Amino acid sequence: MKKFSKEQIDNFINILDFSKIEGELVPVIAQDYQTNEVLMMAFATEEAVRVSLETGIACYYSRSRKTLWKKGEESGHIQEIQGVFVDCYVDTLLLKVKQKVAACHTGHYSCFHREYENGEFKVLGEKVFDPDEVYKK
Amino acid sequence: MKKFSKEQIDNFINILDFSKIEGELVPVIAQDYQTNEVLMMAFATEEAVRVSLETGIACYYSRSRKTLWKKGEESGHIQEIQGVFVDCYVDTLLLKVKQKVAACHTGHYSCFHREYENGEFKVLGEKVFDPDEVYKK
Repeated sequence: MKKFSKEQIDNFINILDFSKIEGELVPVIAQDYQTNEVLMMAFATEEAVRVSLETGIACYYSRSRKTLWKKGEESGHIQEIQGVFVDCYVDTLLLKVKQKVAACHTGHYSCFHREYENGEFKVLGEKVFDPDEVYKK
Repeated sequence: MKKFSKEQIDNFINILDFSKIEGELVPVIAQDYQTNEVLMMAFATEEAVRVSLETGIACYYSRSRKTLWKKGEESGHIQEIQGVFVDCYVDTLLLKVKQKVAACHTGHYSCFHREYENGEFKVLGEKVFDPDEVYKK
């Protein structure tokens, strides 16, 4: 896992541009560090970025719940950060991660498991876990 | 290139959720269709999605210029769409594309060409074109 010192995190956050998305957010793309498969896209506040870099485990901001979203806290399906990349405008992050079990709440490994082709949504690959078992209430 | 009929495009757009981003937008991730390298992330309006699927060439919406952004129109660095994917909430798109020359305006192939490591931004790879030559005014 990739962790950073407080000074390194402060410097990183100072460079990021949170002004482009309402609510002072940056989009974050999570990508499998070995296959480069894109797993998901979510948003992060300054605090979420700070937690990600402090802990080495991806943390987002839930816009619907309006709270920090430590992904995998309930399911155990955490993302261990292997690399932190920024785009040319420093307003979007890309995290290369080691994904535990799966990224998607549906049971699929990636949230992008549906391809639109010939007017239909084709589901790619099998589910790797049963959401009813994992997200018990 | 992947193109779609009017009916297929209408059905696709009806399913997409443009309500999550101010200005009725969806985030769009462009990924190299062969290596899975993430090239860029931008936003698209309904009209931009429509143009992408009609022409088979990626089209975005420029929030700074407030206009449709046919990527590569000036530079020739177009993205030929090879696959169209949606995420589990149908509010984010992933396009697998054949990128002409490079995606980034800096001359790098990907916009995510900088990794943050040990407190420094490490530039990965060489420029593949000279921006001063391509973007003449």
